[in-house]
Amino acid sequence: MKRSDFTSDDHLYIQVAEGLEKMIADDVLKIGDKLPSVRLLSDEYGISMGTAFQAYYHLEGKGLIESRPKSGYYVRFNHKRFRDLPKTLPAASISHDVSVKEMIGSIYHDIAAPSTINFALAVPDPSLMPIAKINKSVMHVLRNHKYSCLNYEHSQGNPELRAQVARLAFNWGGKIKPDEVIITAGCLEAVMVCLRAVTKPGDTVAVESPNYFGLFQTIEGLGLKAVEIESSPVNGMDLGGLERAIKKYSLKACVATPNFNNPLGGSMPDENKKRLVELTTKNNIPLIEDDIYGELYFGKHRPRTCKHYDTKGMVMHCSSLSKSLSPGYRIGWAMPGKFMDRVRQIKRMQNISSPTLTQAAMAHFLQNGRYEYHLKNMRKALYTQSLRYMQAIIQYFPDDTKVSRPNGGFILWVELNKKVNAFKLRAEAMKHGISIVPGKLFSASGNYDNFIRISYGKPWDNDADYGMMMLGKIIKKMIG
Amino acid sequence: MKRSDFTSDDHLYIQVAEGLEKMIADDVLKIGDKLPSVRLLSDEYGISMGTAFQAYYHLEGKGLIESRPKSGYYVRFNHKRFRDLPKTLPAASISHDVSVKEMIGSIYHDIAAPSTINFALAVPDPSLMPIAKINKSVMHVLRNHKYSCLNYEHSQGNPELRAQVARLAFNWGGKIKPDEVIITAGCLEAVMVCLRAVTKPGDTVAVESPNYFGLFQTIEGLGLKAVEIESSPVNGMDLGGLERAIKKYSLKACVATPNFNNPLGGSMPDENKKRLVELTTKNNIPLIEDDIYGELYFGKHRPRTCKHYDTKGMVMHCSSLSKSLSPGYRIGWAMPGKFMDRVRQIKRMQNISSPTLTQAAMAHFLQNGRYEYHLKNMRKALYTQSLRYMQAIIQYFPDDTKVSRPNGGFILWVELNKKVNAFKLRAEAMKHGISIVPGKLFSASGNYDNFIRISYGKPWDNDADYGMMMLGKIIKKMIG
Repeated sequence: MKRSDFTSDDHLYIQVAEGLEKMIADDVLKIGDKLPSVRLLSDEYGISMGTAFQAYYHLEGKGLIESRPKSGYYVRFNHKRFRDLPKTLPAASISHDVSVKEMIGSIYHDIAAPSTINFALAVPDPSLMPIAKINKSVMHVLRNHKYSCLNYEHSQGNPELRAQVARLAFNWGGKIKPDEVIITAGCLEAVMVCLRAVTKPGDTVAVESPNYFGLFQTIEGLGLKAVEIESSPVNGMDLGGLERAIKKYSLKACVATPNFNNPLGGSMPDENKKRLVELTTKNNIPLIEDDIYGELYFGKHRPRTCKHYDTKGMVMHCSSLSKSLSPGYRIGWAMPGKFMDRVRQIKRMQNISSPTLTQAAMAHFLQNGRYEYHLKNMRKALYTQSLRYMQAIIQYFPDDTKVSRPNGGFILWVELNKKVNAFKLRAEAMKHGISIVPGKLFSASGNYDNFIRISYGKPWDNDADYGMMMLGKIIKKMIG
Repeated sequence: MKRSDFTSDDHLYIQVAEGLEKMIADDVLKIGDKLPSVRLLSDEYGISMGTAFQAYYHLEGKGLIESRPKSGYYVRFNHKRFRDLPKTLPAASISHDVSVKEMIGSIYHDIAAPSTINFALAVPDPSLMPIAKINKSVMHVLRNHKYSCLNYEHSQGNPELRAQVARLAFNWGGKIKPDEVIITAGCLEAVMVCLRAVTKPGDTVAVESPNYFGLFQTIEGLGLKAVEIESSPVNGMDLGGLERAIKKYSLKACVATPNFNNPLGGSMPDENKKRLVELTTKNNIPLIEDDIYGELYFGKHRPRTCKHYDTKGMVMHCSSLSKSLSPGYRIGWAMPGKFMDRVRQIKRMQNISSPTLTQAAMAHFLQNGRYEYHLKNMRKALYTQSLRYMQAIIQYFPDDTKVSRPNGGFILWVELNKKVNAFKLRAEAMKHGISIVPGKLFSASGNYDNFIRISYGKPWDNDADYGMMMLGKIIKKMIG
């Protein structure tokens, strides 16, 4: 295609853009593909660099492509082929049945099974981790720590690690002192000690629906009742629904994952975060914020947190390194605001303190700026993976499949044809060594029978391709 | 002294023994001192090796000296100077008051404070640990583990570590399969997950009195009620008392530390362990056995455990490596018998799993027989330390001081003059940088005002000598 092919100079860039758009719609350019550089495009089409840039700018505005800093332009979406978002079902507040508990057990059982094609666990593949550099940090602290980390750590955690966690908070506008941080064994323990700090058995707490199944188990295990608040992939927890629940129940806490919600993948707009904090604070309800996916954003900026809007110490912010750096090290933290004393006491009662070695190693790693560098690469990798998995769903799954569009994190939320029972789908898939999570696990009300959660934490390879293809086959067979 | 000094050949060995006994009573030979070898004694006294041996054998029978394999004879006790055992006070079942909670917080705060002369924490000094060999195990697993231990571990724990823990159980006559073991973050977490598995808030559990303060906090934190059962340094938990409590309350669990009880230092006779298991099993009450000090015995054999007598899976055995190898690694375990499924579920809800790295490193360390070798040295060191600390109490503390005679573990239980308020004593001692635990913390009933617990985990040195001397001075001043 040369300049002479175009009919009007005025809309030259639009014509170039339309040509590219057609190539995307026809799958000549696939989601995740890198586009030619501006210089190459200008050479190829015989247009000026400015016009080439304008064409990309136009497509970016339409959400079809995107620029990645220092990398170039990539195909992002294919309007023609993508369909609706999965729908949200009404929430309830009853308990999980026994089959769901067994299912959760079987999913966690896969954690360390190396032979499974694991789309079930929302964890990063170890190949995405800076293993050699982390090992260097471990060896550094073994050599330099007075007792090689054999002694007990403070219940509140390694002071240097707390300083580093406080430093990370700058990215979302947090002004946190190291003394306001407590280290836990992962984010789930952080959420749990926060819950225990502000509730007693029999109390009622508000949670988003759908929601991470581990949270339901934790809540039930503490003898608490959960009121599910409808949550959308676009706006997060429905604040109107929360307001009604506050009037109806005596809520002792509210647990929310405002950024890259599990399983919906979406994030609450900043304005809503602010309103959520105001609403809960006004009603004297501690807000437990699970920000475990917060650093894994695909956009240009770290999304804000609810903690950023906290003026009264009523937000108990929880996060970890488990999704982004070192799952097996079990390093998480809470910033429990005014409830620090009680949280520290509960952590101590639970297991005295977290291990000294893993804390010291992570403190050293974070101290050296290696984390920021690693995160940049990881975000890119995850974003590319999200597109590859979405493309596989388009390619292999039936046409009536609906899928979320995560803007961070690890997870695709997939709505299948009503004929598909996801429990049966999982059982069939496991015969081929493929693990997924049925949607029913994400709501205590037992909804989402025909939904599944697929994690794209595993880099795209032949196994992943085979796994997604087989899933598509099984689903098609189940629809009949 | 030569053979000619003795009047009758028949009682020659007795005369030598009596001479030595007088030297012990007069403090010429101090507790913990090494005695001359049999050969040297025979030379010095001009007696046959057989007579020298008989003299030592006689003194050993009286409990004044003891032989240590491959090391020789040591002074063990000084009848003349030792006084009564501390007494046991009536037990109750009310809650700790606020000042006790604050005190517990302040004691844990000392955990990582390097400048304190710490007699408060029942932990081994890092200098007693095989640091270099443990580091080798860490480096081995970093190099040889597929993902350098960055991935999640099974909720139940590293399979090889569980196999090693099962192997350790042979020493107390346990026939345990690796599948019957679950790894936890230390012994306290093991006890906690076991408690949560068999109780719900509002339930009542039986515990020994006095008892480890962390246990009271854990029980209260879970919303449980504790019934204290009187416990003696000689027989452990009073089984008659337990039987009465069973009739009076609907007990949902019984928690006991049969070996080297904290703070009493004594152990339950094996016959009582058997009866305790029979009594609780017959009444369908799960018995949570805390055996954290079990490997640190000063006698010739590893004491048996309650788990050894368990035929119905009703004993939930808990222990750890925190007191004997690697406090900061937070490696403990439970053998929860028939309650395994529930325990595993609770561990998962609490923090998914314990860290992969520390588990793999300890598995490697235990695999290589290094633990047994280390334990042998550590038992010797602790025993010597126990004698040195006892001697310091005799030397520096007032004459009416009463002290326990631990046969394992880390702890001396000390009864002071009634005029001494141990809370005030601690406050005074902390001004000199000396940390001890007031006895009041060991009973929810608030008894033991004039008792203190002293840990001898710190090797004897000038600091320890200064600390004990200062404590003695402060106590004498408080009595006036």
